[in-house]
Amino acid sequence: MNRPTTPRSGTTGWLDETVQLDLSADVVTLCARLVDIPSVSRDEQQIADAVEAALTSLPHLDVVRRGHTLVARTDLGRGERVVIAGHLDTVPLHDNLPSRNDGTNLHGLGACDMKGGDAVILKLAAAVPEPVRDVTYVLYEGEEIESEFNGLGHLAADDPELLQADFAILMEPSDGVVEAGCQGTMRVDVTTYGERAHSARAWKGVNAIHRAAPVLERLTAYEPRRPVIDGLTYHEGLNAVGITGGVAGNVLPDACTVSVNYRFAPDRSETEAEEYVRGFFEGYDVQVTDSAPGALPGLDRPAAQEFIAGVGGTVNPKFGWTDVARFSALGVPTVNFGPGDPMLAHKQEEYVPLEQLRACERALSSWLGGGR
Amino acid sequence: MNRPTTPRSGTTGWLDETVQLDLSADVVTLCARLVDIPSVSRDEQQIADAVEAALTSLPHLDVVRRGHTLVARTDLGRGERVVIAGHLDTVPLHDNLPSRNDGTNLHGLGACDMKGGDAVILKLAAAVPEPVRDVTYVLYEGEEIESEFNGLGHLAADDPELLQADFAILMEPSDGVVEAGCQGTMRVDVTTYGERAHSARAWKGVNAIHRAAPVLERLTAYEPRRPVIDGLTYHEGLNAVGITGGVAGNVLPDACTVSVNYRFAPDRSETEAEEYVRGFFEGYDVQVTDSAPGALPGLDRPAAQEFIAGVGGTVNPKFGWTDVARFSALGVPTVNFGPGDPMLAHKQEEYVPLEQLRACERALSSWLGGGR
Repeated sequence: MNRPTTPRSGTTGWLDETVQLDLSADVVTLCARLVDIPSVSRDEQQIADAVEAALTSLPHLDVVRRGHTLVARTDLGRGERVVIAGHLDTVPLHDNLPSRNDGTNLHGLGACDMKGGDAVILKLAAAVPEPVRDVTYVLYEGEEIESEFNGLGHLAADDPELLQADFAILMEPSDGVVEAGCQGTMRVDVTTYGERAHSARAWKGVNAIHRAAPVLERLTAYEPRRPVIDGLTYHEGLNAVGITGGVAGNVLPDACTVSVNYRFAPDRSETEAEEYVRGFFEGYDVQVTDSAPGALPGLDRPAAQEFIAGVGGTVNPKFGWTDVARFSALGVPTVNFGPGDPMLAHKQEEYVPLEQLRACERALSSWLGGGR
Repeated sequence: MNRPTTPRSGTTGWLDETVQLDLSADVVTLCARLVDIPSVSRDEQQIADAVEAALTSLPHLDVVRRGHTLVARTDLGRGERVVIAGHLDTVPLHDNLPSRNDGTNLHGLGACDMKGGDAVILKLAAAVPEPVRDVTYVLYEGEEIESEFNGLGHLAADDPELLQADFAILMEPSDGVVEAGCQGTMRVDVTTYGERAHSARAWKGVNAIHRAAPVLERLTAYEPRRPVIDGLTYHEGLNAVGITGGVAGNVLPDACTVSVNYRFAPDRSETEAEEYVRGFFEGYDVQVTDSAPGALPGLDRPAAQEFIAGVGGTVNPKFGWTDVARFSALGVPTVNFGPGDPMLAHKQEEYVPLEQLRACERALSSWLGGGR
């Protein structure tokens, strides 16, 4: 009753057989195939089985599986190793499956966030058997929910050697341009209390839901901070993402909990973010339930500059929290770079432009193949 | 997701055997026994089985069972018939079982609302085999939840002849004095809408939970109407009894529903009550989910005046909705009269004073027995 649970499922897919992924198909076809395998967080077994089968069929890769997370590596003794990573899970279904290709865009749950990036990764894994840089491909579970379920987080904790690299690219949707850094994210439960009473004699109790009015008013009046860091303008956010309260239809409720998500620019630490949120909701019971730090852009790193120059030179700030922060924590410079408009992530109408899928594949294939 | 469900259980109690109720025990002991049989709404089988077994052991009563509702009648050919009724169910558990007798009060879930009244009914059924008025005792299920589950409502619809009488007494807690009429009750869902978006890019969506702030503000500012009817002052109420909203921890929610309970004085019809609530929440989506009319005091009826004079003469208004309204609809004048402070109904610390249990039993026993 305290907070909305993130939707999840105990099922492991609706097919007994492993779905076949044809990595020789073009990137658009492959992306559509991935979208059509439902993989809401905590229900990634089917897609992970399909990806595992496809990767293990490639003799130039060593494949390791941890839960529903796959790690596939070349081992060519190159002087440099890069990680290219994407998550396999999606937010909940919203009447947006199966996929639909209108000739310009591929529509459907996860098309943008981030099966487009996953499709590019699988194409690279199959089509560039001898990259000029050794590559570690990572396709992982549990990114869209509480960080305790994050497959990359599990790797960082349990098998950090699998993530060691000189540079990493996270293929979260970035409209096909480099996005640097990422904002932190923190979830808190703000709870109001009252006293139960029969609703026919309300003056004998205190209504906890009514007491939540000022909490929602503060959120409505919130003005986001927009700091500039390394020349990039970030944009914070503070939003109710859930609310619960109520005992029975004839009882004044004695508790009401507003679950709030704070997205904070990477110049704030988690400690500073918590101080800010506690101050914002001063006078209320605030419990931190989930937190992940941001990552500073790190554009001064040589590996970052080399990649940026290689794919066009444009850099934007990253608003959404991404797992670049996990690589940051391991000392690996990382950028976001993937097909799809990040503004469409988690929206019912999300899609990925076909041309961006192809352009991202071309850019990375060329960079890995030494084509430039 | 649209509204909080009223807690209910599919279980039918934790014992396989029917609990034995000793109707020769004193009313306090019997009340404690009833309290210690958990009977949250939709889980009344065990208590109904126990009551049925106790009533069918009394040869002077004809017993009929409908669902978990019992009707037990004398058939002595008296010139007058009265109904004495009580519900067997309680609101949800709140760490308030088993019962506790401190020598002055009996504490525990349902002690006040209304196993005290039920205990008096069972004592009368056993101890007054030849009442001067024919009596119909009714002990019924499903009073604390949506009216569709109400056992008395089912009787009124399917077996109205079982409820025919010249007068009825509903033993809802009334502090041992007569309470007349009852307020109506209506539940509505007030829903706000928004547009989903990733919480890291909140400016691309609209937060439906934030939009509920003015709904809660209106409820906070609500001023109850207090009309005087037949000399009795009623007291209305408008309260949120539930709130739900949220999709996932990183998504701006596109809907938020506040479930509201309106308690209205009996000078308002259900139609007028609905008009009032719709006006109060003007500009919002309002759906009526449950409704029951009030009952005017009806103190001008001869049968009512006779009973009131018999038990002391004091009459108060009834705030809580009670099933007197169902008898009203059948043309049977009805009052509330039972042990326990109605202010304690549905509160964790509810209790019934031992002396009120005994006084109610004495008053009704004397009235039925022709003792005055």
